[in-house]
Amino acid sequence: MERIYANQLDESMLGREVEVAGWIEDIRELGAINFIIVRDVTGGIQVIADPSMLVSNGIKITRQSSVKVKGRVQRSRSVNYPFEVKAESIQAYSIAKHPLPIDPTGRVNASLDARLDARALDLRNPSVAAIFKLRHHTLQIIRRVLVEKGFIEVNTPKIIGSASEGGANLFKFSYFNNRQAYLAQSPQLYKEQLTLALDRVFEIASYYRAEKSHTTRHLNEFVSVDVEAAYMDADDVMRVAEELIVEVFKELKSKCSKELDLVGSNIDVPSLPFPRMSYVQVVEMLKKEHGMNIEVGDDLGDHALRLLGESMKGFYFIVDWPTNLKPFYIHERDDDPRFSYSFDLQYGALELASGGKRQHDASRLRKRLVEQGLDPEDFRDHLKVFEWGMPPHAGWGLGLDRLMMVICNVKNVREVVLYPRDTERLRP
Amino acid sequence: MERIYANQLDESMLGREVEVAGWIEDIRELGAINFIIVRDVTGGIQVIADPSMLVSNGIKITRQSSVKVKGRVQRSRSVNYPFEVKAESIQAYSIAKHPLPIDPTGRVNASLDARLDARALDLRNPSVAAIFKLRHHTLQIIRRVLVEKGFIEVNTPKIIGSASEGGANLFKFSYFNNRQAYLAQSPQLYKEQLTLALDRVFEIASYYRAEKSHTTRHLNEFVSVDVEAAYMDADDVMRVAEELIVEVFKELKSKCSKELDLVGSNIDVPSLPFPRMSYVQVVEMLKKEHGMNIEVGDDLGDHALRLLGESMKGFYFIVDWPTNLKPFYIHERDDDPRFSYSFDLQYGALELASGGKRQHDASRLRKRLVEQGLDPEDFRDHLKVFEWGMPPHAGWGLGLDRLMMVICNVKNVREVVLYPRDTERLRP
Repeated sequence: MERIYANQLDESMLGREVEVAGWIEDIRELGAINFIIVRDVTGGIQVIADPSMLVSNGIKITRQSSVKVKGRVQRSRSVNYPFEVKAESIQAYSIAKHPLPIDPTGRVNASLDARLDARALDLRNPSVAAIFKLRHHTLQIIRRVLVEKGFIEVNTPKIIGSASEGGANLFKFSYFNNRQAYLAQSPQLYKEQLTLALDRVFEIASYYRAEKSHTTRHLNEFVSVDVEAAYMDADDVMRVAEELIVEVFKELKSKCSKELDLVGSNIDVPSLPFPRMSYVQVVEMLKKEHGMNIEVGDDLGDHALRLLGESMKGFYFIVDWPTNLKPFYIHERDDDPRFSYSFDLQYGALELASGGKRQHDASRLRKRLVEQGLDPEDFRDHLKVFEWGMPPHAGWGLGLDRLMMVICNVKNVREVVLYPRDTERLRP
Repeated sequence: MERIYANQLDESMLGREVEVAGWIEDIRELGAINFIIVRDVTGGIQVIADPSMLVSNGIKITRQSSVKVKGRVQRSRSVNYPFEVKAESIQAYSIAKHPLPIDPTGRVNASLDARLDARALDLRNPSVAAIFKLRHHTLQIIRRVLVEKGFIEVNTPKIIGSASEGGANLFKFSYFNNRQAYLAQSPQLYKEQLTLALDRVFEIASYYRAEKSHTTRHLNEFVSVDVEAAYMDADDVMRVAEELIVEVFKELKSKCSKELDLVGSNIDVPSLPFPRMSYVQVVEMLKKEHGMNIEVGDDLGDHALRLLGESMKGFYFIVDWPTNLKPFYIHERDDDPRFSYSFDLQYGALELASGGKRQHDASRLRKRLVEQGLDPEDFRDHLKVFEWGMPPHAGWGLGLDRLMMVICNVKNVREVVLYPRDTERLRP
């Protein structure tokens, strides 16, 4: 007999003998009958059982236990469950030990910390599972769109031998023969190198930042979507980013409406193109509209972005940042080298992605390293690639976890990450 | 003007003005004309140019330089290139500095070490790029098949707070407040936990093994494809593995014949089901056919697998391993607990995947930990999940890099990994 899932129960199943498997979400005793809700990853199933079936080896089968039910499908009188399974047998695989640390039906609220400590159980709450189903679908859509746009998926190393992008905030450890190794913060240098031959590459992977922060949007391990493309400029890759996000929103809205309802998110497909504001316009807006004490050349910190988020809703780009606020690999503007071909993709106050056109001239790249206080010798493997006929190129990195915050309409990044890692949390 | 790629040049383009971009693979001077081969990620393009066009700011444009050519498409007399571009202008983006460390046309052989030191340039060799295009397609096919089979993609942490699976051979580092952290060797414990609610999960990610080894099939950072499924047993997940591999081979054969030709691999789609041999049968075969000194209970080391590979070609499973040769989480056989519901997927002498049915009973799991000399206290986060109604489950981990060795018919895993990490190699 084939196991069927909750979402397969329909008219055509009436009278059929089936097997369903999952956990007992609820048990109601009505006289000589038990009404049991067995839930699997797709939904709930009403099971009608004799009370004696809820005992396994003399032990009462509790709520949240894992069971397999064999029985026949019949019509039900329940409003929520048009079909039900009349049990012929119930097999308990493992009996849940009570009290449980949290109530996964969501009827009793638990703190986020308690939920994360019991994450596997927390996922039995359909509105929590929905977040990770949306994340799963988002990943598939992102890859489909990038593959259609000619990007090749690559795997670059996360163990790196020299501190790329400056070296601050990297986790360090000892590699063989006492060499110093680091955990990569991004695939930046590798993805740039790969445009030499592979033209357009992408990677979706975990990265690491050894930064002490206690915010609702930073983690020490995070998933980034990275693209890099030869012969594209900043405008080209901004278009890739906005078209990608529109595709994600469209497809989620059409295919995952149930999950979006469960997480309480009512996403609107944004229109193209996303608004673009220059960094200088942003600074002026902050001064005029918010009376902020900020000058051109200052970075846009938390406070600035919070104020900006009050004026700017939805997705938009901040473009043309001062060159010295951006990493060494960003290309200065040809018409005014104090500014650069760079952008951040924002959603209100939240930074989602960062990118731009890259410097592809070896000597100017070396100069930029020195200007930023970095030692070109640490980048020798990288710099030599620029002497092999490096094409002009551009790209961006998008925080997947942050995109999921927007999609799921949640305020804390820990809600959309299965097992978050922050300054305090290293387990489970 | 839109940039076109080499593989877009056809009859319909004749007479059109186009722009092509890539690197100069070859320059032949024939009287007053230069025949240039410009290569991009899709192939080569013959360009006819006036010799004066091969100078940029007074500097000669060398082979491997990055260029953009504007010109008109015409028919060619060349055997290899039915169409060519008559250049109107050539723009050099960056001029390659000679001598180059390796010859990416492949006409001069280079050692693997020299190629890996110049990996970005090495990828300009079409037969090297083909390996990574096959890898890209393999990744897309694997995910498509797993999604169709109902698996949900997850991201589990690679920074872990306790040494899972025993703790030997883990890279260690200091986390905040001087806590000890480790790099994950597999997502084993997390993927098992997630079957509690998500039923079927998969993850494709990088993992880390701090093992000193100097073989052609081990790396210290590797990519693993992991699946785990509730209510499946070892046979069920073996079927998932073999069906997945057949789909990969079928689709690569039909869609990537050019790339397979370039890497010199002539793959045959294996037939289903793959042969299954029990561990005991393997031991008997090694004794009888190869006169090997081995007894039931001994592990199958390098030497044993090499001998076995002489008798067994293609894909096959070794099933029912002795329980004590397998990790604590493997489920012993109900009919004979000395053996387990476990399997290795082999390709000749090469181990590709390992998996089985897992122990889902909390007390027996605790007992197995103690038997294997592990401290259950180190696994407390994991063990408590088994008291929340853990379903029976099974799964496997497949080495993507090793699968790519089989697909590309190469003997060294470093050929199929962009930037390999081994005991010696930490750069580039």
